[in-house]
Amino acid sequence: MQRTPTSQSPIGIFDSGVGGLTVLKAMQKLLPSEKLLYFGDTARVPYGPKSQVTIRRYAEDDTRILLRHQPKMIIVACNTVSALALDVVEKTADPLPVLGVLEAGADLAVEVTRNRRIGVIGTQATVCSNAYAYAINKANPDIEVFSTACPLFVPLAEEGMLNHEATRLIAQQYLAPLLAERIDTLVLGCTHYPILRAVIEETAGSGVQIIDSAEAVAQRAASMLGSTGMEASRTEATLPHLMVSDLPQKFSTLYHLFMNASVPDVELVEV
Amino acid sequence: MQRTPTSQSPIGIFDSGVGGLTVLKAMQKLLPSEKLLYFGDTARVPYGPKSQVTIRRYAEDDTRILLRHQPKMIIVACNTVSALALDVVEKTADPLPVLGVLEAGADLAVEVTRNRRIGVIGTQATVCSNAYAYAINKANPDIEVFSTACPLFVPLAEEGMLNHEATRLIAQQYLAPLLAERIDTLVLGCTHYPILRAVIEETAGSGVQIIDSAEAVAQRAASMLGSTGMEASRTEATLPHLMVSDLPQKFSTLYHLFMNASVPDVELVEV
Repeated sequence: MQRTPTSQSPIGIFDSGVGGLTVLKAMQKLLPSEKLLYFGDTARVPYGPKSQVTIRRYAEDDTRILLRHQPKMIIVACNTVSALALDVVEKTADPLPVLGVLEAGADLAVEVTRNRRIGVIGTQATVCSNAYAYAINKANPDIEVFSTACPLFVPLAEEGMLNHEATRLIAQQYLAPLLAERIDTLVLGCTHYPILRAVIEETAGSGVQIIDSAEAVAQRAASMLGSTGMEASRTEATLPHLMVSDLPQKFSTLYHLFMNASVPDVELVEV
Repeated sequence: MQRTPTSQSPIGIFDSGVGGLTVLKAMQKLLPSEKLLYFGDTARVPYGPKSQVTIRRYAEDDTRILLRHQPKMIIVACNTVSALALDVVEKTADPLPVLGVLEAGADLAVEVTRNRRIGVIGTQATVCSNAYAYAINKANPDIEVFSTACPLFVPLAEEGMLNHEATRLIAQQYLAPLLAERIDTLVLGCTHYPILRAVIEETAGSGVQIIDSAEAVAQRAASMLGSTGMEASRTEATLPHLMVSDLPQKFSTLYHLFMNASVPDVELVEV
């Protein structure tokens, strides 16, 4: 049973793995008084290449894990889930507010573009779902959206190859078709990609504005809490409550890569 | 309940995903009369970065899925499972014979090396387990083994970047420390790597003999069936019975990349 949340209740964030830590980091920076819960489904990562039926089943599991902690809001840090299963999360969490990285990133891109030509990069599943194009065109049907999947960006980020010639060559290959379409805005439609932001930005060139969906969703959460009077009044900083479904061998390396901090206590949750 | 298998029973092969198809292909080539079952745990791939507890649990599940079809032999096509959970498979399948790619590759490398300096490349989990070094040194304690993890090789293979400059740069970086140790033999300790064999072979140079563990395990299976009189007498070629735990969007592309054939019927199995 769910109790009615108060302004002191935590904010729940989930992702298919560690990528959503970029959202956790953006939230910490923007909302330092909030208590944050993070669940990473590290046992079943990656969601990207899986079928929609499986992704929707996982999205419901992930939401229920956060609901055990009586949150006041759910943030879907996973672009794949935002694209293919946001309605599942909303139904499972009802009546709590649910924010998806995808919608936040799409809306910010619509605000930023000048020539109305937006590029989106993400996993195969996110790109195939056309969900960014749908969300962008819902806000403004006159915008043209050009998308491409970049499956190597996640492992390149996790290998820490942030400034490697191979990463540059692969970025050039992935971005070439988008740049040929003269985009002026590029959405990082996967939570891992901010780790490679420098190479992506350099490859895209100064004429292209980069949209980080993690930052965008944190801004949206802040304004929603403000407008509903649900901001926490805590003043001391608290460590996030981290939950994972598996403890991968590289977890502390990856946590450090994403958060630039050492790992706090981690709770292992069965899925 | 298990019936006693006959020579006409199928051979069961499993892997964490599609990588083990290189073993299926090697088996088809060497043993065209055998009926082959393949289970790929595509819902939970990759096993490599997961913890040992999780990998052992999955290995038992995978073995039980094959046992439903009353096989006469189990082949563990997954190097990670061979490294960390072969005993689980043996116990679950007892009294059936179980062959692991890892042991087969290790033993062949021991036969081939001249200077007794062997390199091994694989996933993080396979390398960290030290299982290749253990298997090689069990056969010959005088051999020195040098190992390195190559996490980008799997996604590079799956992207079909078989002849790309970025793949070459990454291969050079991964293999440099092994080549500096003057290895004369290099074990492809991950079933995906044969897909990138040309680039790996070129980077290693003509002084290094490449050992494909998939071919090695097929040779071992053939000789074991021969010595126990368990070869199938079928003469007509049969399609393999394919089972997967999820149907990823790229499955048919990947099947074609690995098998150079179009996908036969696939059975979806719940895990």
